[in-house]
Amino acid sequence: MAQIIDGKGIAGSIQKEIAEDVNFLSNNCGKVPGLAVVIVGERKDSQTYVRMKRKACAEVGIKSIDIDLPGDSSEETVLQTVLDLNTNPQVHGILVQLPLPLHINEEKILASISIEKDVDGFHPLNIGKLAMKGREPLFVPCTPKGCIELLRRSGISISGKKAVVVGRSNIVGLPVALLLVKLDATVSIVHTRTPDPKSIICEADIIIAAAGQANMIKGNWIKPGAAVIDVGTNVVDDPSRKLGYRLVGDVAFEEAKEVAGWISPVPGGVGPMTIAMLLRNTVDSARRASEQT
Amino acid sequence: MAQIIDGKGIAGSIQKEIAEDVNFLSNNCGKVPGLAVVIVGERKDSQTYVRMKRKACAEVGIKSIDIDLPGDSSEETVLQTVLDLNTNPQVHGILVQLPLPLHINEEKILASISIEKDVDGFHPLNIGKLAMKGREPLFVPCTPKGCIELLRRSGISISGKKAVVVGRSNIVGLPVALLLVKLDATVSIVHTRTPDPKSIICEADIIIAAAGQANMIKGNWIKPGAAVIDVGTNVVDDPSRKLGYRLVGDVAFEEAKEVAGWISPVPGGVGPMTIAMLLRNTVDSARRASEQT
Repeated sequence: MAQIIDGKGIAGSIQKEIAEDVNFLSNNCGKVPGLAVVIVGERKDSQTYVRMKRKACAEVGIKSIDIDLPGDSSEETVLQTVLDLNTNPQVHGILVQLPLPLHINEEKILASISIEKDVDGFHPLNIGKLAMKGREPLFVPCTPKGCIELLRRSGISISGKKAVVVGRSNIVGLPVALLLVKLDATVSIVHTRTPDPKSIICEADIIIAAAGQANMIKGNWIKPGAAVIDVGTNVVDDPSRKLGYRLVGDVAFEEAKEVAGWISPVPGGVGPMTIAMLLRNTVDSARRASEQT
Repeated sequence: MAQIIDGKGIAGSIQKEIAEDVNFLSNNCGKVPGLAVVIVGERKDSQTYVRMKRKACAEVGIKSIDIDLPGDSSEETVLQTVLDLNTNPQVHGILVQLPLPLHINEEKILASISIEKDVDGFHPLNIGKLAMKGREPLFVPCTPKGCIELLRRSGISISGKKAVVVGRSNIVGLPVALLLVKLDATVSIVHTRTPDPKSIICEADIIIAAAGQANMIKGNWIKPGAAVIDVGTNVVDDPSRKLGYRLVGDVAFEEAKEVAGWISPVPGGVGPMTIAMLLRNTVDSARRASEQT
């Protein structure tokens, strides 16, 4: 039986560490870390994510700068908002909740975020430095960073291990693969165009599942004793639930936990870590700013 | 018996295409593509590489701007040279031959090259865009681009294939792995910290060997029919040669050619392609400049 990786618990410990850092920065350096969370429009799911992020800021003492723009805001308005935040010394991180309304060019808005405040770590310059040996990005993207932290805090060694990343998105699959290469894992990247993913996944010591396909990875795809980090957050119908649906990962959890050595559940695995890493990046940014002044 | 991939021949055809493009740009747009090749000091190997690059420029009609600085030049002098080339409208590509003398900070010099003239494609912003889905770098690094071009012009399909990249350098291994992922291969990255490289290499349809270890990959490491691109350029003693040494690849060629479907030799495989791609990048840069004016 696999050891269940308690993402919620680990994220909780990290948030306590962050709260101490925030306390130190606020009291000893007069620098209260600030995170601007920008939402455009009224998508219910985006509102939920934004609310969670703002609440997490409050819990650790990060000042959340809340900017709620109407869904019909012009691109110019959103751009100007970001540019103002770039020069605001109280703001150390800027997060623009995606997706933006269709009439707004996402790439343009994201590219306008100052590299020093890009706490999501999605700027191509950050990704380039993440990829390159001997270079370090200012910010590591939150979900990939959370996956690595889950492995580390569960005592799972990475160097010399075979790791498989399922999925190659800019947000998770690709950057987590780059991180694993830097950490000396032998990395394979499996994706929608891989003819026989099972044959590669079943040889891995570490599986990072970020395919966005409910229950894609079965129990018999997993090498006995492997560590499985499930990034998937898929909605499946479930009439027995009040809301009529539930969230499941990319891994068939009930089967997988009989085979794996470690497994992170969905929900309660990677999800809470993503938010914890966002807070971490914001505090690191505030510390850098305090060191520069 | 493997089909030998004639890199020299393929590079020759590409140079002809490039010469036509140069001719068109020069005669129809009044834009003669210019490549600045900067060398600092008198290392024999660097001088050889620089001479080859300048000769190749001359062959296709690219204007080579030759800058030879003494080995005791200050960092400030080299930096100012690059900054002058950045603003020189006759220069569309800047190549600083590495390694630089030890008293000069390479990263600083490379970072000073204008992103629009970074024909080597090593700027982290270029690497980031190379990595990211939906983004395109201004320049793809020359050797990785040459590897892909060798596969393409040999009629070897990449999408859906298992590819293994041996080595994870910033210059070859890492960017070629990123290119292969973008081209829909299932990619594994094997390196010095991989305990059993053979077990992974022997399953690959495409092998890119960029480890820098003479004859590391044996014939029985190769899946019958696989395509093998050998990037290695290793010096081994050979008393039978006039110079007392010869160049060999990372692949044990004589054994490998009995098993592989295609194989690129060393020398005469990837080497000529690297220079051809440098010329290609320079001409593409000149075309972009002519479109902007």
